[in-house]
Amino acid sequence: MHDRRHCVSADDVRAAAARIAGAVFLTPAFGSRALSDAAGRPAAVKCESMQRTGSFKIRGASNAVRLLDAAAAAHGVVTHSSGNHALALATAAANRGIPAHVVMPMNASPIKRAAVEAAGAAVHACGNTAAERAAACDEIARRTGAFVVPPYDHPWTIAGQGTVGLEIAGQLPDAGTVVVPVGGGGLIGGIAVALRDACPGVRIVGAEPELAGDAAESFRSGRIAPQHPPVSIADGLRAPLGELTFPLLRDLVDDVVTVTEGQIVAAMRFAFEEMRVVIEPSAAVGIAALLADRCGGDRARPAAVVLCGGNVDLASLPWCTHG
Amino acid sequence: MHDRRHCVSADDVRAAAARIAGAVFLTPAFGSRALSDAAGRPAAVKCESMQRTGSFKIRGASNAVRLLDAAAAAHGVVTHSSGNHALALATAAANRGIPAHVVMPMNASPIKRAAVEAAGAAVHACGNTAAERAAACDEIARRTGAFVVPPYDHPWTIAGQGTVGLEIAGQLPDAGTVVVPVGGGGLIGGIAVALRDACPGVRIVGAEPELAGDAAESFRSGRIAPQHPPVSIADGLRAPLGELTFPLLRDLVDDVVTVTEGQIVAAMRFAFEEMRVVIEPSAAVGIAALLADRCGGDRARPAAVVLCGGNVDLASLPWCTHG
Repeated sequence: MHDRRHCVSADDVRAAAARIAGAVFLTPAFGSRALSDAAGRPAAVKCESMQRTGSFKIRGASNAVRLLDAAAAAHGVVTHSSGNHALALATAAANRGIPAHVVMPMNASPIKRAAVEAAGAAVHACGNTAAERAAACDEIARRTGAFVVPPYDHPWTIAGQGTVGLEIAGQLPDAGTVVVPVGGGGLIGGIAVALRDACPGVRIVGAEPELAGDAAESFRSGRIAPQHPPVSIADGLRAPLGELTFPLLRDLVDDVVTVTEGQIVAAMRFAFEEMRVVIEPSAAVGIAALLADRCGGDRARPAAVVLCGGNVDLASLPWCTHG
Repeated sequence: MHDRRHCVSADDVRAAAARIAGAVFLTPAFGSRALSDAAGRPAAVKCESMQRTGSFKIRGASNAVRLLDAAAAAHGVVTHSSGNHALALATAAANRGIPAHVVMPMNASPIKRAAVEAAGAAVHACGNTAAERAAACDEIARRTGAFVVPPYDHPWTIAGQGTVGLEIAGQLPDAGTVVVPVGGGGLIGGIAVALRDACPGVRIVGAEPELAGDAAESFRSGRIAPQHPPVSIADGLRAPLGELTFPLLRDLVDDVVTVTEGQIVAAMRFAFEEMRVVIEPSAAVGIAALLADRCGGDRARPAAVVLCGGNVDLASLPWCTHG
């Protein structure tokens, strides 16, 4: 029963899972007693932080790269991103042996740039505004024939990210609530498509920084709210919703809740010190929502929190003060 | 078939598992694709780093505390330790509502002292030598009637630690090799008793810092070698073997291998950056042994590495240089 307002069906997600199986890890999912005790309800985590390239983004990128026919693939792929999608696309392209181009703003971190280059991509500097990034990306696509793989607002990307939902259904079949950090909406959109099919009654909650609360606003108003200024520590969640991801959020998700920057840092510290997992601030947002008791649902059944990424600078953790 | 030279039987370990079930976590065990790829063989981890109090020590401590009869328990428990056993015993005693005394050298870290006090134990300062610590512990035992719970060389402690082995047999039934860091030998001794019974053919390998390589020496010579100077970064593994743990190591373990300090730090960094788990240096020793291809065994079957603890100062990780 594919809703025609939606760009992706559960069949698309299942096909993506088969397509990317050799390119991504089946990441661990397990109950966390430390999180359960602190949240006062049974809790589990799905560790996309342990995914190849350190985030779920490799799923959508691999799905897109593998869906290209041979002629298109030969021209390579291109995207603009300074974060996890860039590394994921570079890795997925290298895996297929095709060129990858990544447009990065000149103010991007040298560490991230080096990682993308080490994965084999050509990095192209651009201006720092969204318009400049998009223009540079389009120019490279025109010049090289490379296929543009957007970080979230594309059916192939969304279907790939949705494979996380299929795995949750298989690994944590008792989960009553699933908590997913929301940036551009590709991850929660894909997961919602998969879970509404596999476990129709499960509660799906988006978690967002208050300072990047556009998805919560969009969910309540029924219209895509503009992006907030990019100030949240959860740098993976600053993007606005897309035209394709918003209908999935609107129709398939039960709630979108926000947490403060202080709650995010405290949750990240809790993850390191009590749960003993390495996560990035974006992944802490889901933990923060659960610890703040914002997620609702059946408290007798496990709440599964998607730890979306683990790419963090361990030399400057946000609760450490040096010097 | 209990070997009479051994202080603990598989039945003792099974009884301990039932006894401590409510006091400890069933910790996650899962395959790590990052570790498998780097080691060139399938690998899994058993995450005692995620255990209550941050290490496996709560198992032995809880078993001992729960084995005391009511009259003995009323006098409390005492130990000397500046590390994970101190926090574990304090927590196990608080769990039963009995007093705990911990003797700590005056040069112990204030953070560790504060954690033990926060768990409800009375901390008693002593001199820094092993003899001074033991004397202070005995004096408190005499004065208060508290029961001495040694960190490893006691049948109750060893049986408790052995429950890790039962869980490995249940959670990772395909494991062909199990790698266990060795300090005083309580963990590997207990695990070996459990696994020789549950999975007789499994290969059991101890992993030790070269700078604290007394267990490897003892294993080869057939006699307990003296403790090395306590200089390894793996501070949980500096203890000498005990009279009770050595026969278990000698008779039930297949090999004991050593790794360098550089390999330990590199493995710890690998755990944080690639496996995305928070571990202490002692737990990195097992990873280092696998990455150095020192563990042997059937390379087609998973090697399970016991991540024995996660108590590490995140503000001064050994590969960070500040200042």
